[in-house]
Amino acid sequence: MREPFIDTLTIIGIGLIGSSIARAARENNLVQTIIGFDADPAVRRRARELGLVDITPETIRDAVSTSDMILFAVPVGAMGDLIPTITPFLRENSILTDVGSVKAAIADVANDLPDRVHFVPAHPVAGTERSGPDAGFSTLFQDRWVILTPLDRTAPAYQTAVKTVGDFWKGMGAAVETMGAEHHDLALAITSHLPHLIAFTLVGAADDLEAVTEAEIVKYSAGGFRDFTRIAASDPVMWRDVFLNNRQAVLEVLGRFTEELALLQRAIRWGDADKLTEVFTRGRAIRRAIVEAGQETDVPNFGRDQRPPGNER
Amino acid sequence: MREPFIDTLTIIGIGLIGSSIARAARENNLVQTIIGFDADPAVRRRARELGLVDITPETIRDAVSTSDMILFAVPVGAMGDLIPTITPFLRENSILTDVGSVKAAIADVANDLPDRVHFVPAHPVAGTERSGPDAGFSTLFQDRWVILTPLDRTAPAYQTAVKTVGDFWKGMGAAVETMGAEHHDLALAITSHLPHLIAFTLVGAADDLEAVTEAEIVKYSAGGFRDFTRIAASDPVMWRDVFLNNRQAVLEVLGRFTEELALLQRAIRWGDADKLTEVFTRGRAIRRAIVEAGQETDVPNFGRDQRPPGNER
Repeated sequence: MREPFIDTLTIIGIGLIGSSIARAARENNLVQTIIGFDADPAVRRRARELGLVDITPETIRDAVSTSDMILFAVPVGAMGDLIPTITPFLRENSILTDVGSVKAAIADVANDLPDRVHFVPAHPVAGTERSGPDAGFSTLFQDRWVILTPLDRTAPAYQTAVKTVGDFWKGMGAAVETMGAEHHDLALAITSHLPHLIAFTLVGAADDLEAVTEAEIVKYSAGGFRDFTRIAASDPVMWRDVFLNNRQAVLEVLGRFTEELALLQRAIRWGDADKLTEVFTRGRAIRRAIVEAGQETDVPNFGRDQRPPGNER
Repeated sequence: MREPFIDTLTIIGIGLIGSSIARAARENNLVQTIIGFDADPAVRRRARELGLVDITPETIRDAVSTSDMILFAVPVGAMGDLIPTITPFLRENSILTDVGSVKAAIADVANDLPDRVHFVPAHPVAGTERSGPDAGFSTLFQDRWVILTPLDRTAPAYQTAVKTVGDFWKGMGAAVETMGAEHHDLALAITSHLPHLIAFTLVGAADDLEAVTEAEIVKYSAGGFRDFTRIAASDPVMWRDVFLNNRQAVLEVLGRFTEELALLQRAIRWGDADKLTEVFTRGRAIRRAIVEAGQETDVPNFGRDQRPPGNER
């Protein structure tokens, strides 16, 4: 087993992602000491009970002042205030990193930091609809992509920090990609933010349809609706911050989506069978590509209708 | 084990649903003899190879003329021509039934049938994104809802037919519900048809976004997009027919959806944090209700990121 290459890691925010990092970093022997901090005292207590972290200081100052790497696993909107608050307490050459789903907004904050600390923005493209320290698990990042969007800093110490953060994620089983923050925000707007927005919207629209009862929606959800409710069950505060901080890219892809939807609406109204067939045929190819790329299991219906072995009736 | 209560069942269309019915009917000992028919000779051959059916006649006449129950498992658009074609060949008191996702359109066709045969429209709310005779499995309908939308016929023979079709589905592990065809079409428009339409649209919009490559969409699909591609991989012809035959209800719920989406778009543009939080909070409650109703497994991320026992690395 390799030597831990980070002495002291601080994880700020011990939810689904923060607790998964704690578990994965420990299991892969990547760090010596993990300090955990969470604004919620109940979460700090639970993190101790679960043995996720070694220390849970009461103040943010104590949480960051002895660390080699400080990782923010909090909603994007919380970072803008947090970073200036902790900067005075940080050791020389501390590495800061995050897991936020939008990257241009955080780059604006990170660029204001002094040269003596190194912020490497990162985004693991992984998650579930659950929240909180009990929801995490150590294989969450296995075979998933982590995108780094480094700042425009050329100092060797900064480049070393970028490499350290990349190696940290690789050590947890992820594949690492580097790109500009704006490009990240557009790519994720279409692959993640818009799907979530649409799922939240659909659930809302169903809720408002007075002619169909909620009991019926629940009963017949296996027809497709339930897949949307999975992602619509994700953390509301996290997602609010995503949309507030990636406004431009989300509005851009949303515009594309509504144009396409208007075309389909017209095709349905006028009974244009050819247009419907054409659009409906595209889905299979991209699905196949996602399965082949290892980003999805090749089990129909996510395997939920096939009973697991030993569980037949 | 109970006695088979149907002597001869004909399944027309041996795809995902038809082949699952063949498997489930056999496994639960519901029928004596299964006749299979499919317009595609390759599918007929495959059904024989898989041992799904006892007989696969070459003509539709031979397939239906000795049957007690004829079940249509073909796209909705194929039934309008098929039913008048086979009517002259049917035995007195034959039961006809289907599995179509829209019910008002089929009621119009079924109402033209003579009194000597009994059409009981049915819709199992179950399926996967796969197609063809190899895709089916015998537990597909287990704990799923099947909706019957009986015609307005009061004859005792018709009522007996309704009961037989209901018992047939119960015998395959489904729960049976009865409602009017129009109400069915509206309830399914929101729980199934609209989700599919939106998934197809999103995949199309992603395909058209030239600034983000398809490789990137595939890579980062774990952020939410891949869940949409599962349902967008469903059979294009089946779905074309659903939208052509449930135009009014789909346009109605689509109107609700686009209104709701416009409100969210506005909230994002103007940074209305409260509105976003409010909408995003609704998803969790309905998700919980679906899981509690047994229409979903209570495993985060459909369980795909947790490695199954014995499969750890």
